[in-house]
Amino acid sequence: MRVLGIDPGLRNMGWGVIDVDGPRLSHVGNGVCISKGDDLAARLLSLFEQLNAVVAEFDPQTAAVEQTFVNKDGAGTLKLGQARGIAMLVPAQAGLRIGEYAPNKVKKTVVGVGHADKKQVDHMVRLQLPGVQIAGPDAADALAIAICHAHHGGADNRLTAALAQADLAATA
Amino acid sequence: MRVLGIDPGLRNMGWGVIDVDGPRLSHVGNGVCISKGDDLAARLLSLFEQLNAVVAEFDPQTAAVEQTFVNKDGAGTLKLGQARGIAMLVPAQAGLRIGEYAPNKVKKTVVGVGHADKKQVDHMVRLQLPGVQIAGPDAADALAIAICHAHHGGADNRLTAALAQADLAATA
Repeated sequence: MRVLGIDPGLRNMGWGVIDVDGPRLSHVGNGVCISKGDDLAARLLSLFEQLNAVVAEFDPQTAAVEQTFVNKDGAGTLKLGQARGIAMLVPAQAGLRIGEYAPNKVKKTVVGVGHADKKQVDHMVRLQLPGVQIAGPDAADALAIAICHAHHGGADNRLTAALAQADLAATA
Repeated sequence: MRVLGIDPGLRNMGWGVIDVDGPRLSHVGNGVCISKGDDLAARLLSLFEQLNAVVAEFDPQTAAVEQTFVNKDGAGTLKLGQARGIAMLVPAQAGLRIGEYAPNKVKKTVVGVGHADKKQVDHMVRLQLPGVQIAGPDAADALAIAICHAHHGGADNRLTAALAQADLAATA
């Protein structure tokens, strides 16, 4: 099962693709779509085109998009919302089922704690995807979202079972 | 010059198309895209497809999208933002220049005051587009946005000049 993770942003949209085979995860690709253009419309179009190219190249079977953190900065929320609309649209257009995960759920799954910092996320992504070259913090987040979806999204129930067993073994 | 106006919303996305010929405005079409589907991704995809069909049918030369009012309701702003991302993407993909107007700018242009209610907007849209049948409040707003773009967006400078002259005559 091939999983696409997306970390939405209007300037930089991180993406990461992994393969899930039972309890085994392997890295396929990652990168950052950087929006081009002077105005909002051009930037959204540029993200749409780049993300479409990623889907066309890697042909994922399922996708996950990070839920946007809503804060008091209404203008910031609106900008992020517009980018997130594109991040949801592209896999939907490709007919993929899309999981949505809150940032602390992603961190809790990948690092073990909900308030991990970027460095810890990066470290754990590297541990779980040996040999991976990561294009930047947004790409690391996207890979973490893909890993989270692999664990929770029913991408492969055997993985969930194996992890549960490992948890049991660790706490026994 | 054919102008497409869009009133973005996640449930209902209003659209209106007018032709601008010098100072003359005429109605071409209007309607409401109603999002279908159980989850956010499906609804965004459904809006994208319906709005694309509108652009394909009416072939506008320029577009205008209402600026979203940012309030303290972060979750609501995020939802609207995602819908607005689609509203911006569709005309951008068609290569159209897109104007953005705040709601009070639209009302001020169409009704004459920035805090007009929906009923006044509807009334003035009907006055300016004689014989128009309006599909609902969101479609009326979209037509108002198209009218606003015709006046301010340089869709036809002769219209702007004619309006300025009319203003001068009225205040003389």
